[in-house]
Amino acid sequence: MLLAAPLASCTESQDERPNIVFFLLDDFGWLDSSVAYGEEQYPNNLRFDTPNMQRLSEQGVIVTNAYACPVSSPTRTSVMTGMHAAHEGVTMFLANNSNVPTDATGGTRGTFKVNENEEDTLIRPEWNYNGITPYECDMPYMIQVTPMAQLLKDAGYFTILAGKAHYGSMGTASSSPYNLGFTVNLSGSYAGMPASYQGEDNYGNKPGEWKLHSVPGFFEYWGSDTHLTEALTVNALKSLDYPIDNGIPFYLNLAHYATHTPIQPDKRYYDKYRERGMDHLQACYGSMVEGADKSLGDLLDYLDAKGVAENTVIIFYSDNGGHSVNTSKGGDAHVYNLPLREGKGSCYEGGVRVPMMVYIPGKTAAGTRVNTPVMPQDLFPTILELAGVDDYQTIQEVDGESLVRLFTDGSQYVAEAKRAGKVNGQKEENAFRIPESVSGLDPERSVISHFPHQWRIEDQYDVDFLSAIRKGDWKLVYRMHDLDLELYNLREDLGERNNIAAQHPERVKELASELSNTLRKWDAPMPTVRATGKKLPMPDEL
Amino acid sequence: MLLAAPLASCTESQDERPNIVFFLLDDFGWLDSSVAYGEEQYPNNLRFDTPNMQRLSEQGVIVTNAYACPVSSPTRTSVMTGMHAAHEGVTMFLANNSNVPTDATGGTRGTFKVNENEEDTLIRPEWNYNGITPYECDMPYMIQVTPMAQLLKDAGYFTILAGKAHYGSMGTASSSPYNLGFTVNLSGSYAGMPASYQGEDNYGNKPGEWKLHSVPGFFEYWGSDTHLTEALTVNALKSLDYPIDNGIPFYLNLAHYATHTPIQPDKRYYDKYRERGMDHLQACYGSMVEGADKSLGDLLDYLDAKGVAENTVIIFYSDNGGHSVNTSKGGDAHVYNLPLREGKGSCYEGGVRVPMMVYIPGKTAAGTRVNTPVMPQDLFPTILELAGVDDYQTIQEVDGESLVRLFTDGSQYVAEAKRAGKVNGQKEENAFRIPESVSGLDPERSVISHFPHQWRIEDQYDVDFLSAIRKGDWKLVYRMHDLDLELYNLREDLGERNNIAAQHPERVKELASELSNTLRKWDAPMPTVRATGKKLPMPDEL
Repeated sequence: MLLAAPLASCTESQDERPNIVFFLLDDFGWLDSSVAYGEEQYPNNLRFDTPNMQRLSEQGVIVTNAYACPVSSPTRTSVMTGMHAAHEGVTMFLANNSNVPTDATGGTRGTFKVNENEEDTLIRPEWNYNGITPYECDMPYMIQVTPMAQLLKDAGYFTILAGKAHYGSMGTASSSPYNLGFTVNLSGSYAGMPASYQGEDNYGNKPGEWKLHSVPGFFEYWGSDTHLTEALTVNALKSLDYPIDNGIPFYLNLAHYATHTPIQPDKRYYDKYRERGMDHLQACYGSMVEGADKSLGDLLDYLDAKGVAENTVIIFYSDNGGHSVNTSKGGDAHVYNLPLREGKGSCYEGGVRVPMMVYIPGKTAAGTRVNTPVMPQDLFPTILELAGVDDYQTIQEVDGESLVRLFTDGSQYVAEAKRAGKVNGQKEENAFRIPESVSGLDPERSVISHFPHQWRIEDQYDVDFLSAIRKGDWKLVYRMHDLDLELYNLREDLGERNNIAAQHPERVKELASELSNTLRKWDAPMPTVRATGKKLPMPDEL
Repeated sequence: MLLAAPLASCTESQDERPNIVFFLLDDFGWLDSSVAYGEEQYPNNLRFDTPNMQRLSEQGVIVTNAYACPVSSPTRTSVMTGMHAAHEGVTMFLANNSNVPTDATGGTRGTFKVNENEEDTLIRPEWNYNGITPYECDMPYMIQVTPMAQLLKDAGYFTILAGKAHYGSMGTASSSPYNLGFTVNLSGSYAGMPASYQGEDNYGNKPGEWKLHSVPGFFEYWGSDTHLTEALTVNALKSLDYPIDNGIPFYLNLAHYATHTPIQPDKRYYDKYRERGMDHLQACYGSMVEGADKSLGDLLDYLDAKGVAENTVIIFYSDNGGHSVNTSKGGDAHVYNLPLREGKGSCYEGGVRVPMMVYIPGKTAAGTRVNTPVMPQDLFPTILELAGVDDYQTIQEVDGESLVRLFTDGSQYVAEAKRAGKVNGQKEENAFRIPESVSGLDPERSVISHFPHQWRIEDQYDVDFLSAIRKGDWKLVYRMHDLDLELYNLREDLGERNNIAAQHPERVKELASELSNTLRKWDAPMPTVRATGKKLPMPDEL
């Protein structure tokens, strides 16, 4: 190692900055692993074997109130920009082609129609459906930003994007992760899903069968029985060799395509779930979950073997709630995220509450739970702080707040409370408020989920022009089609079954006011009322 | 730049190893630029505008007897392994799919037929048509090697493959440049050509039109009017930012798809050549040449702008002779490489003599010509020596010899001879022998070109089961179909028009013996005689 030789002569200058792995799953639900983020172990936690997620949960911190956006691109761009998705105007997933909004307007409710339909009362909003751009650009429906990966690269980090990108539609700068500050890109593009997970299918790359979302790369596994999750993992780990061997800190954005559709078997695990009585699609999904779990385990093992585990931060996260309709995942519809209501695309908890774990070697208290709500835009300042990047400028106005103190001091605070017997058991620990003086964050900070869109799924009553705000135990949901406000108390009613808006008019007013004012401040996308041609009223204007 | 800061505190350990750019064109002929490698400026040198190649020729060394293999993959693998292509058994280009030999057996001469044909007297040889492999592998028709890029990476070099790879068929490890030691790969795969150079075509990536050789990547230019050569250049230069900004030496293998088929217009230059009276395909080809020239200029400018030009070696090379049939490039057939005979696929000079220039800052004498023959396998030890990698082990037996002294001391020797008036003008300089005591290389070292294959082109009489050896001014060509040996004196007959074998039986015998003994030593692929079922006789067995 010739480069190592001269560096060895001045060890005092060895780069001690931590490596950071952002391990992101896709459509992976809050209940999809044995890690119980809730107050108890629910039946859905027991479906699949996820020993490596369990291992990370015991090593790091479980974040019990982690939120993402209802769909993929908003979460991903929000992490990359530090902006709330409603502020950056990327509130729906992006299409493969540029200049194509993916939200329907306005189909009959419950049935997708892509063309204008006079039957619907709402017209879709304008939003940034070409994604983010790192450069000034004439294309409409984009927002120019300073990407997090670029700031890390500028600071000397070796930045790798492995897997799904989905930051901009084809023909835009941000469809190439290289334009966002990544030094290595392993298959990331404009695409939001893979055409196939199967090596036998060349991951979708066959003449006559090729689709815009066929996976570019991993040629060495074409024609083999290697599942995409495995191909991606092997390549991602290989990409770490250069920075590790040369003492360079890395940022690995390992964004699996799994467990997004198409739901296809990972043959290593499929039979096991069939033998447990699952139907074909359920077993496929289970096998994909376990494949993703294996990837996490391989990563942790590799970091150990390379001797860098004790200097590598792991952030485990999902980009939105689990998909909860049955056509893709088998079984009965709308049950996958129980006790949470609904799934991907919805502003109810099933769509936005996601699994999250964080391990910061030597700084997080092992096996603790932190309860303060966290959001995708928080990861921007968090990751930059972890990397020691504290002197940077951004084009965009950053909305997120750093979570570093929450994960470190906050988790130590919880550990101390446990030792002192102040919290006992999962339920108490889950509800335990970490004071702002410890974490730097208001334990009742507001979470806004904004989805002013109609999405083309089978039963879209709960995935259809919604906006919501959660503050502490309370959650207000604005059902735009109905011009109706619902209120839930999540402490008592995590499943959002009992609308108690009528009983708490002051609470409704207060939350409606905050939601409205924030959306107005951000100039957030809002649908138009077809009958009047005017923007839909804000919740406080009802 | 936080990484730069700690390094700056111990400047004595600053990495001073040179950056190395291997700028490789595809099917780019010896006569395709204004740089006159021959003894005079031939008419073919005047077809296209190549100011940046001219610029490099004045800055660096012109290698007037540079050889490549008759086709692409053998040259590329030979550079990567240091083995002669006939020694590694990769003597023909590789297919997209594995286990598919690309050589015909045995079509009627002059007409390609892919199936067995009893009319032909020869049966194709066994050869390594699955390419090279860095790992032990059960697949047949491969050779396991230690790739040069891996040795550079292991030594701390930041290794980038931009463009065409073509080291192994799909499903093999070496179809992914990441498995060969590259840290960054920009579109390299198993494919030997692009499906399209046009951004409007998404470089071949459209549903229904996708082919196995569609270019994976450059999504940001899909739908635009950006030619592939430009997209590749922009991305290749961007990939240099990380190593340059962090003081890490890099190896950039910038292997353009240009100027391989499909011959399509680079719109920036097409009209100019039409206005000069060229037909459509000629103008397309000219525009592709000038696009490649622009890429070289952009590279040189970028290295200047980044302040690393004076520490960056440039090696300019082509992977085989220019294509000389007319269906792809317009105009008349077999004239593109005049005065050389034939083109790509042939063992006559038009197929194997290629343009080459080398610039080693501070060490090469500007604007000189070196005449000693060089071959692709020489680049393996040359590049490793330039990188200071002198303590390495390889699985394979390396055939190449380092060219570093030829380019440095050799070019200085020529410069001195010019100053002393010992050589005057291009013709004398071109013929000037640099003694072995100066360059470390026998000025009459042998060049073997071995192509025991039949290739599916229109008129394949000169691209059909040939093997050749050049030594000094003499060249022996074995026409396997005819069981005939031809002898040419290249000093007097560069175009190989006058077979003088009958006049020089001793010379024929001597060259036939060396060629035969070397091919036997390497166990080189040889066709089978259909009538006898035995290997074709070696030239010394005729």
